[in-house]
Amino acid sequence: MRWPGGGIRPVAEPIFKRMALIGIGLIGSSLARRAREFGDLAGEVVANARSAATLDRVVELGIADRVELDPALAVEGADLVILCAPVGTYADLAAKIAPNLAPGVIVTDVGSTKVSVIRDVGPVLPAHTHFVPAHPLAGTEFSGPDAGFSTLFEGRWTILTPPPGTDERAVARLRLFWERCGAQVAIMNAPHHDRVLAIVSHLPHLLAFTICGTADDLANETRDEVLQFAASGFRDFTRIAASDPVMWRDIFMNNREALLEMLARFTEDAQAMARAVRWGDADYVVDKINRCRSIRKSLIEIKQA
Amino acid sequence: MRWPGGGIRPVAEPIFKRMALIGIGLIGSSLARRAREFGDLAGEVVANARSAATLDRVVELGIADRVELDPALAVEGADLVILCAPVGTYADLAAKIAPNLAPGVIVTDVGSTKVSVIRDVGPVLPAHTHFVPAHPLAGTEFSGPDAGFSTLFEGRWTILTPPPGTDERAVARLRLFWERCGAQVAIMNAPHHDRVLAIVSHLPHLLAFTICGTADDLANETRDEVLQFAASGFRDFTRIAASDPVMWRDIFMNNREALLEMLARFTEDAQAMARAVRWGDADYVVDKINRCRSIRKSLIEIKQA
Repeated sequence: MRWPGGGIRPVAEPIFKRMALIGIGLIGSSLARRAREFGDLAGEVVANARSAATLDRVVELGIADRVELDPALAVEGADLVILCAPVGTYADLAAKIAPNLAPGVIVTDVGSTKVSVIRDVGPVLPAHTHFVPAHPLAGTEFSGPDAGFSTLFEGRWTILTPPPGTDERAVARLRLFWERCGAQVAIMNAPHHDRVLAIVSHLPHLLAFTICGTADDLANETRDEVLQFAASGFRDFTRIAASDPVMWRDIFMNNREALLEMLARFTEDAQAMARAVRWGDADYVVDKINRCRSIRKSLIEIKQA
Repeated sequence: MRWPGGGIRPVAEPIFKRMALIGIGLIGSSLARRAREFGDLAGEVVANARSAATLDRVVELGIADRVELDPALAVEGADLVILCAPVGTYADLAAKIAPNLAPGVIVTDVGSTKVSVIRDVGPVLPAHTHFVPAHPLAGTEFSGPDAGFSTLFEGRWTILTPPPGTDERAVARLRLFWERCGAQVAIMNAPHHDRVLAIVSHLPHLLAFTICGTADDLANETRDEVLQFAASGFRDFTRIAASDPVMWRDIFMNNREALLEMLARFTEDAQAMARAVRWGDADYVVDKINRCRSIRKSLIEIKQA
């Protein structure tokens, strides 16, 4: 274990003895780097990935103490297991690791949908484990073990969604873990998390993915000009939309209900806006724009923009 | 006239003797600043605004040689007149200035819609003037004469949409004007401009304005959390949407047909995406996301992102 500052021991002892990361992409590798650099998260980091090539890269990067291609072997003896793969893989992963989970282990995840995680993972875990789903609201448009960095979570939110009856000490330990990553921690129930994320994240991504297709379907000549003049607004949509396809596919499929509800509300509102434009209802349009400006102002006031 | 560098004359002579800016907000005041700082655009800058308070501020800022509250007086003796007000005011402004326009003057504008400008301004102008509509694709979320800066147009596009039969020397002079502002110049016909801008700019803004309202209509508790967790994508939409309400109202109303067509295409595509999410058509979703990534990649390749 390297300590930052050349041999000086960190002030705090690690919270966990052995952390197993099931998946080592942007989020997993950022956690691994944080653990290695700061020394106060976990004494040992074990990394698992679907492909041997990814694990070879993890070894080259030197961000884990040990790599394991079999998730069941990766979790052996761990007191913290974090699922860091796309949420669509969780049911399968949970079934594989369940028999090898040590008594008292905290099992958590970093998925963007939480009702589905409780549905897919919760029932499979043995009674002697603690299940505390989590969602760090952090990321970039890049993916894979090379994309991570140890400061990714600093100043960002991590939302914990412990099911009713979850051991409070386990929740407190995981909260401390995320706080040591530099995150602010919020706790809410899973259905509420999924509705909030549907409007602040999943719907904006769906709209961004959609408008790219709409633009791409235009005649050839216009399509070139879409690229040429993208700076006028379209570019920002492509930035939002430049994320991992499998991750987003799984998010959409696993937050289906809340996402479709928010899209239905949005579509009604977009149709009302279209009607106002068609019939020249200027006041309606100005009112919508002013509401947007006041939201923007609130964001700037609370330093979120 | 101040020269940058303390008294050293600029290399190039000004293109125009007297430039009249009808409207002196973000764009108008940026042009005024550019003209003052570089000295190669216009020998004299006359500023007009709807309110005396704005003109008082222009005098304080020292960005014009003269201010005129009456647009008809502002254009007298000018060889370049630029409409820099919201496009909804153009018909009225054109009627007011038309009798006072000097022979050979170039009348242009900076509006985001071009078919409407040709419709509203073209028929009113005397035969002894040259009408060359223009649209600089530049701006910020701020407005008013304090918001402008002389480098606003550098590296950005300006699109000229001269109607058929426009004097080519007038087009060439206006092209030179924008190139000296640091812009790249493209020429296209007005209907095509309006369709391209509808998809790259007007529709993204309409979607951004709409989602703000959708979020704001959610229950109180969720609304607070929309602000708290806005960084997950929603924030970028509010940034796009934090623009001047009157300007955008006028853009929507004056590019109605193209905007409604693009919104209709987008809505079909969003419904297809919703259907894919509802029925678990993962391939459809992944295909849309991959198209978005390839557009993003193209933008990065041509250095627009």
